[in-house]
Amino acid sequence: MTGAEVLLRTLVAHGVEVCFANPGTSEMHFVAALDRVPAMRGVLCLFEGVCSGAADGYARMAGKPAATLLHLGPGLANGLANFHNARKARTPIVSLIGEHSTRHLAYDAPLTADIATFAAAVSPEIHRLESAAAIGPTAARVIAAASRYPGRIAHLIIPADFSWSPGGPLGEFTPPEPPPRPVVPQLGGAGNWGLLLGGQTARGRGLSLAARLAAAGWRVFLDRNAARVEMGRGGFQPERIAYFPGPAQAQLAGLTDLVLLEAKAPVSFFGYPDEASYLAPADCRVHELATPEQDGLAALEALAGHLPPASWEDVPPATPPPPGPLTLDALGQAIAALLPPNAILSDEMVSSGPPVLAALRHAPRFDYLPVTGGSIGQGLPVAIGAAIACPDRKVVVLEGDGSALYTPQSWWTMARENLDIVTVIFANRRYQILDIEMRRTGANGFGERASAMVDISTPPLDFVKLAEGLGVPAVRVETAEAFAAQFGAAMRRRGPCVIEAVL
Amino acid sequence: MTGAEVLLRTLVAHGVEVCFANPGTSEMHFVAALDRVPAMRGVLCLFEGVCSGAADGYARMAGKPAATLLHLGPGLANGLANFHNARKARTPIVSLIGEHSTRHLAYDAPLTADIATFAAAVSPEIHRLESAAAIGPTAARVIAAASRYPGRIAHLIIPADFSWSPGGPLGEFTPPEPPPRPVVPQLGGAGNWGLLLGGQTARGRGLSLAARLAAAGWRVFLDRNAARVEMGRGGFQPERIAYFPGPAQAQLAGLTDLVLLEAKAPVSFFGYPDEASYLAPADCRVHELATPEQDGLAALEALAGHLPPASWEDVPPATPPPPGPLTLDALGQAIAALLPPNAILSDEMVSSGPPVLAALRHAPRFDYLPVTGGSIGQGLPVAIGAAIACPDRKVVVLEGDGSALYTPQSWWTMARENLDIVTVIFANRRYQILDIEMRRTGANGFGERASAMVDISTPPLDFVKLAEGLGVPAVRVETAEAFAAQFGAAMRRRGPCVIEAVL
Repeated sequence: MTGAEVLLRTLVAHGVEVCFANPGTSEMHFVAALDRVPAMRGVLCLFEGVCSGAADGYARMAGKPAATLLHLGPGLANGLANFHNARKARTPIVSLIGEHSTRHLAYDAPLTADIATFAAAVSPEIHRLESAAAIGPTAARVIAAASRYPGRIAHLIIPADFSWSPGGPLGEFTPPEPPPRPVVPQLGGAGNWGLLLGGQTARGRGLSLAARLAAAGWRVFLDRNAARVEMGRGGFQPERIAYFPGPAQAQLAGLTDLVLLEAKAPVSFFGYPDEASYLAPADCRVHELATPEQDGLAALEALAGHLPPASWEDVPPATPPPPGPLTLDALGQAIAALLPPNAILSDEMVSSGPPVLAALRHAPRFDYLPVTGGSIGQGLPVAIGAAIACPDRKVVVLEGDGSALYTPQSWWTMARENLDIVTVIFANRRYQILDIEMRRTGANGFGERASAMVDISTPPLDFVKLAEGLGVPAVRVETAEAFAAQFGAAMRRRGPCVIEAVL
Repeated sequence: MTGAEVLLRTLVAHGVEVCFANPGTSEMHFVAALDRVPAMRGVLCLFEGVCSGAADGYARMAGKPAATLLHLGPGLANGLANFHNARKARTPIVSLIGEHSTRHLAYDAPLTADIATFAAAVSPEIHRLESAAAIGPTAARVIAAASRYPGRIAHLIIPADFSWSPGGPLGEFTPPEPPPRPVVPQLGGAGNWGLLLGGQTARGRGLSLAARLAAAGWRVFLDRNAARVEMGRGGFQPERIAYFPGPAQAQLAGLTDLVLLEAKAPVSFFGYPDEASYLAPADCRVHELATPEQDGLAALEALAGHLPPASWEDVPPATPPPPGPLTLDALGQAIAALLPPNAILSDEMVSSGPPVLAALRHAPRFDYLPVTGGSIGQGLPVAIGAAIACPDRKVVVLEGDGSALYTPQSWWTMARENLDIVTVIFANRRYQILDIEMRRTGANGFGERASAMVDISTPPLDFVKLAEGLGVPAVRVETAEAFAAQFGAAMRRRGPCVIEAVL
């Protein structure tokens, strides 16, 4: 049995059953071993950023890691931006990186590079395989490192000769360690108390418990960097911390105490000349009840489990928008009205987000997967991973036009795997967030040359042709009623499609 | 004057007049300053790998650096694969990276990352700006570091507040240092002597001088990793070292002495189970006459300048292929027959290369830009840079279908800047090089699941729609005569276009 086959069998024995791959020569024995280990699903991506983003989306929904398989330093490099997002999401990922054979490494061949330095930028967990015989036990350690709560990227660098040489024993199964339960002091009482939900507390039981505290007078917020959040009517919907400092400070104004659950104290996305980076009031006491590495749900049980189950005023369901121009409000209303229950939304709307998310409070309950590290180009790949983790759930990607162009190769994999993913492109033909950011940074009075650098209308992008060129059917719509008709139809059938919504 | 404006003016004063940019919030003041410094040409790219590859192509043809402007750690990450290629090409690039404002860095915001670690993977020249006042002198040092012969990537990390605060003086002009002239001993005489041309010796005067040694009985070879090579009829055409170990060893067999000029002793691209990595005969003496950091042309003058000018037997011009199926031979013949003189060819053909390059020996003299670091996705971006450096020359990209999908966003920038670039897609619908590599690594007997991982035919890629979606006109051809007609027409008009050649 080759080292590559031992590796695959060790992965599968630990529940790592999907590998998002863009392989090259040094990974050919891993690819060959796929024939002999049918329990491993290899998913081919045409660009490495699709692999890393898909692995992030998979683990957020499956609750366990997928593997990525990338080709030496430069292949890893192309995956790093979405690994950065996965690092901020605290997602478990087993990152397999092929390396030159040990003998060949002595020569400075063209693809030779310092893989460990590339890898270090997104994770300190860098394991270099030292022999073919060690491949099983080493892989088991890497999987365990990735899976330690809440999760992280763990790299395994695999010289090609250790893949093609006979491997040793399979790695013994190591069950993932449970997160430590924090000690919970008595909290609440006098003052103006707030609760910030992150990690696993931003959904399910966490939200039910938080609703009890809300009923008892607490103000409850969602960490805007939480990797997976439950939203929509039928459940408790706390406010999500806003993007810009002013509105976020207004949300948190007056708090005397803020309790953190698997979340950090809110900070603004960017720093601006005359605005705050730290968003809570200066005199607000901050209580880190559970760090991101601790069991925040257990802490929340201790804090709120004794309170009576709470009810809250639910919002009414949405109705489709009236015929008319295709505004962001109309888009949001249509999506909220037509989304089936239990959908998954991957959000990379950027500037288009706020009105759409406001409308989506009226949608049936859904899982929401935001961009956690601010690196654009994860919306489409994350949807791939989510769809593979949850094949029976509808996945919708809400995607800016500028954002879509970082990893458009994702559409090809959606078509190849026939994934049930509907992409909505918000085609405003600008890096519109930068229009806004320009003014905030004090860079006023933009002239023609500067303005051109945020204008992506020349030449116009044709997303229908782009998606069709990558194998996915697509339509363009320009009115509210056309959008509702196309989005509704997409909700009723299965398979990938793209709707270019011209704003 | 803002720090950003001081930076731009310092760049322009040093001849850095083009900036390939994908800016974000932290770079908005640099963008704003473009209005006030019209000598700087900002070229917007939709993906950072296009920026880094374009800067590589620009400097290879212009002989001086361009700048890149990328957005924090993840923006840099997306540019790293083509920076890896540029590192191997020894290309000068001024890499500007926006960073959070210094005050904001204290908070672990979503985009916060270890920029220096990302940067270190492709260059040790990492400069972090320490104050707004220092921006001019620091930029001058970075430009000097990038420009020291033969060239390298030099990074400048720029906290946003140093861009928006008042800057200090412009950086004083530092002329690039000339390369050191090596001491040249007497070489040649008894034995079987070979010469390997790299760096600046792979073109122009270098080839003329090498022809004199060839006439005196030396065997002359081109470093296959040389960043810019002159090829085609009308000039001396040494053999380029082959890709696979066996043919490369056959080329070098029998040499007793190999003289290196700005090149390293040839090694194979990958290591294989039972093949050599080092390609020269074991008993061949290797003379490093000029290292890549020394003036190889001066060394070659010392070695061959006293010999009489040499003539060589030129190859006949090519004629267009007869009507028939679209083979690689027919493609190569058509390109060789129809290419105008003084064209620039960016080569990312991968498996399709050898027969086409053999045919191109019969083309009029052209500059040839190969993939230097083995990281796929540079063919299209390098062409952008070359076309901007040489606006009066025809640029042709010979591009594999799999390769094109790493940086297809390049086509949008070609359309936006109306660059005179013709892309030929070699559509064989596979990662065909991997079919070949699989067998070489001993991974035989591929079954259906493994084979699917190198098969990109499902769903089929439609390059006509893809290119049109990004603003570039495109056609598909399936016969030799249709290819010749379309390629010929493209040679006669200006502007970008894509020809999908179905093989």
